[in-house]
Order: sequence, then structure tokens, then C-alpha cells
Amino acid sequence: MSSHGRSDAYVHGYSAREHARLVDQAATLTELLHHDTRYPPDARVLEAGCGVGAQTVALARNSPGARFTSIDVSPQSLEVARARARAESVENVAFQQADIFELPFPEESFDHVFVCFVLEHLPRPGEALARLRSRLKPGGTLTVIEGDHGSTFFHPDDADAHRAIDCLVTLQARAGGNALIGRQLFPLLAQAGMRDVKVSPRMVYVDSSRPAWVEGFTRNTFTAMVEGVGEHALAAGLVDAATWASGMAGLRRAAEPDGVFCYTFFKGVGVK
Amino acid sequence: MSSHGRSDAYVHGYSAREHARLVDQAATLTELLHHDTRYPPDARVLEAGCGVGAQTVALARNSPGARFTSIDVSPQSLEVARARARAESVENVAFQQADIFELPFPEESFDHVFVCFVLEHLPRPGEALARLRSRLKPGGTLTVIEGDHGSTFFHPDDADAHRAIDCLVTLQARAGGNALIGRQLFPLLAQAGMRDVKVSPRMVYVDSSRPAWVEGFTRNTFTAMVEGVGEHALAAGLVDAATWASGMAGLRRAAEPDGVFCYTFFKGVGVK
Repeated sequence: MSSHGRSDAYVHGYSAREHARLVDQAATLTELLHHDTRYPPDARVLEAGCGVGAQTVALARNSPGARFTSIDVSPQSLEVARARARAESVENVAFQQADIFELPFPEESFDHVFVCFVLEHLPRPGEALARLRSRLKPGGTLTVIEGDHGSTFFHPDDADAHRAIDCLVTLQARAGGNALIGRQLFPLLAQAGMRDVKVSPRMVYVDSSRPAWVEGFTRNTFTAMVEGVGEHALAAGLVDAATWASGMAGLRRAAEPDGVFCYTFFKGVGVK
Repeated sequence: MSSHGRSDAYVHGYSAREHARLVDQAATLTELLHHDTRYPPDARVLEAGCGVGAQTVALARNSPGARFTSIDVSPQSLEVARARARAESVENVAFQQADIFELPFPEESFDHVFVCFVLEHLPRPGEALARLRSRLKPGGTLTVIEGDHGSTFFHPDDADAHRAIDCLVTLQARAGGNALIGRQLFPLLAQAGMRDVKVSPRMVYVDSSRPAWVEGFTRNTFTAMVEGVGEHALAAGLVDAATWASGMAGLRRAAEPDGVFCYTFFKGVGVK
């Protein structure tokens, strides 16, 4: 671990080397999720719910000849996404403010549609898919990628860590979302009228032979995400402070040299 | 599903067609778990805990030039394994009654060791691995495959189904085993002194686009296995009858056309 650990040389947050490594790390997750999404030249592709553009650059780079329209409901997020695309010299993406439930495009106007980490936040994911499908040309594909917090397990097992994760699931449900949506992609796509639906799990398996994943995924992605809702979970009375602290310690324990951490994303593709 | 369902034509158990399909099904799981285990010609390989030979035929067929010694502590199981190998015309396996904790072989007498679905039943899996390692020549590999019942999740989610699975985990723990051992292969192999340990998860993902897996894995393997401990779990007071029935209904529900079922096996390989 030492060659990947924090060095004494940096004080203000991450060193340049650390930052480069975390970017590599993100690229590895990008590879796991996106490597098999490639659109042909001149394809018109709608990315629905691009947020701050976390997936947009990878998506556009993997299909340099395709033309992307990346929409989000938040103008603030779009500003970040635009700046990010500009910084990365990505030129085949047009950003546009739009709501998935009120799409400002004619029916059958896109060759393909791509949705990543969006359905988990929507109260009516099936309706969103049906609306997106209507904008697809016949024969076009609809690709959906989602995580599933209920797929999480680790060694050593820890009941309080599972309770902490359950808080995240409960809070997301109260906000109208569904943190267990990954496992549902097959029925969601099928019920939205897509055919030839194929879903493939993408498990992130992390042990200490993969130190970049221990740091980049177990600690700085998943554990940080759970930790981030701590105050909210405590304020909502979902958990007491001692259990929460114990749960967070349990998650950190899984990132130790003899620990193991598993999380599964799902990718589903259907044809109209 | 109808083309894969039971036909009216058979009354006494499975029809020939059904049987052929289940064999295909097992072959598919065999492929998932064993396709990347290939030993060179003349390699001496110890299969420790072969049981009734469920893995032995696939193992021996994948490495026709290697010479296997398949041991089990149970003479009755070995008789079944021998008959199975004979029926399949497998000729590169010698069966022998032996205990993993009292191996009747000199140190460093095998080129490779293979262990599948054995550690989950042992009270001291680490000690078993250490003993097996001692019989390995330097540079040889130790391959371990185990499931992990805690990796199970499904759609629709069902708390009683999880309770039923937990009964299986509890009963296995009371019998001295560990049904959550799959996730632990990395630390177990590392602590046994193996180096270059690589663990890969093998997720069985089942939705109704894979009807052979719905029938062969979700229903006839996993659900049947849980159902099989029902009387024991009830007698031990781990669960009440209503919860158990509800849990079993929940598992069967995941095999319906809009259901999804996920289970993960782990394969670990280390070098001496």
C-alpha cells in the first residue's frame, strides 16, 4: 500500500501525483461501465440527465464521430458540464437545458439514447423510459446504467455498516428515488416496451491487491458517499450516533489490507 | 418460458428433454466457474474434497493431459464420484479416501491444488489451506472456488426471503462452516502464505431472458437449496412457519418473468 498511500510531501489536500492516480481510478471505473458503448459516425445520441458531465466526456470520446445532445434539468450542472467538456476539448456534444418528462424534441428524433445514474433519482423511472423511448427511432438502442446499494457486501461483515447503508437507501426513497434500482433494469426496460433487452452486471471487486480501487472506490467513492449522509440520517432519526460511528468504522475496516469490498453496477440495453 | 417449461408428457420426475436441459445448465455454470482452469500435460494435480465428483469431470476434461488425484473423506461420496467418472469415460483421475487435515502425501508432491465448495464446510479453512500448500511444489498454484450466500439479492426485494437465506447461513455456521466464505478468499489465501493472489467474482445474473438459468439456477439450485433446510430451520426455532413460507414465496417470485436473481461465486488463485 505504501507506494499508493499519501506522502508526507503534501499538505493542502491531494498532491498532483495523488490527483493523477484518482483520475486514473475514475478512468478504470469508466472503462468498466462504458467500454462497450460505441456509437457509429453521424449517429444522433441523446444523453438524458448528464448532470455535471461526469460520464459525458468518456461517452463522447468513445464515439468521436457521433453527435451527442446532453440534457439536464439543472442549468448550474450544465454549466459545469460545459466547462468540463471544453477543458477536455470535446467537440461532439451540444448541451441543452431540458426535463426528461418534457422533452423538447420531436418523436423518433434520436438514433440512440443513453441514461446513467439518473433513474435512481426519479419517482417514475418507468415513465421516464417510456418518454425517452418515444424519442428513439425504430431500431435504436436505449442504454441505462445504474448502481444498486443493496448489492454491497464486504469482509469483515458488519451489521452496523449495513445499517448505515440502509440509511442511504431510506433517505433516497424518501426523496422519491430508489437506490436498489440496478437490479430492476431488465423489467423496467421490458415494461417500457424495449425488446431484446440485455442486462449485464459490472461488479467492482476490491481487495488490497488493487490499492487504487481501495482508495478510489471503497474509501473515496462508496464510504465517502455513505459518510456524506450521516448528519441527515441522524437528524431524521434513522440511526443513533453510536451505531452510525460503528457502521462507518466497519466500512473503513473493509479497506484494510485483509478487507474485501464488493459493489455491483448494472448496464441494460434494449432495442426499439 | 413455455418452451422451457415442464411438458405434460412426463410423469415420473424429469423427461429426457428436461434432463438434457439441466445438464446443459450445469455445463453453463461449469463454464462460468471452471473455463479458465487449465493444467499442462503431465501436471500432477490434487483435487481436495471432490465429494461426489460434481466438479471432477469438468476439471479432468479441461486438462486431459494432467493427472488428477481426487480425494474425499467420505468413502460413500467417492463411490459415486468413481461411478460418475467411469460413466463419462474420464481416465486421468485417481480417487482416494483421505482427510484434508491428514494428507497421505509427501510435502511438495503436487504441481497444483484445486479446492471447490469445500472450505465453506470446514471449521478451520485457513489451516486446511496451509496444509494443502505444504503439499504444493514451489511455483505451483492453489485454486479455490466458493459461493457466498450473503451476495444474494433479487427483485422484487423481500425481507422474508433474506430471513430464509439467513437461516441457511446460521445453520451452516452452527455446523462449523461459513456460508459467507466466498468474499474471504483473498485474505484466506494470503494468510496461508500464497503469493500473487488473484480473486475474481463470478456473478450469476438471472432474468427471464435466460430461461435456462431461471429454471436451472434460481429455482432448481438456489431456491431448492434454501427450501431443503426448511424443516431444520423451523425445528431449530430460527424462523416461524409463516415467515418461512413467505420467504420461500419471495424467492419463487424472483423467478417470475419480471423477476431478477443475483448470486456471486468467487475464484481465487495463489502461487506458492
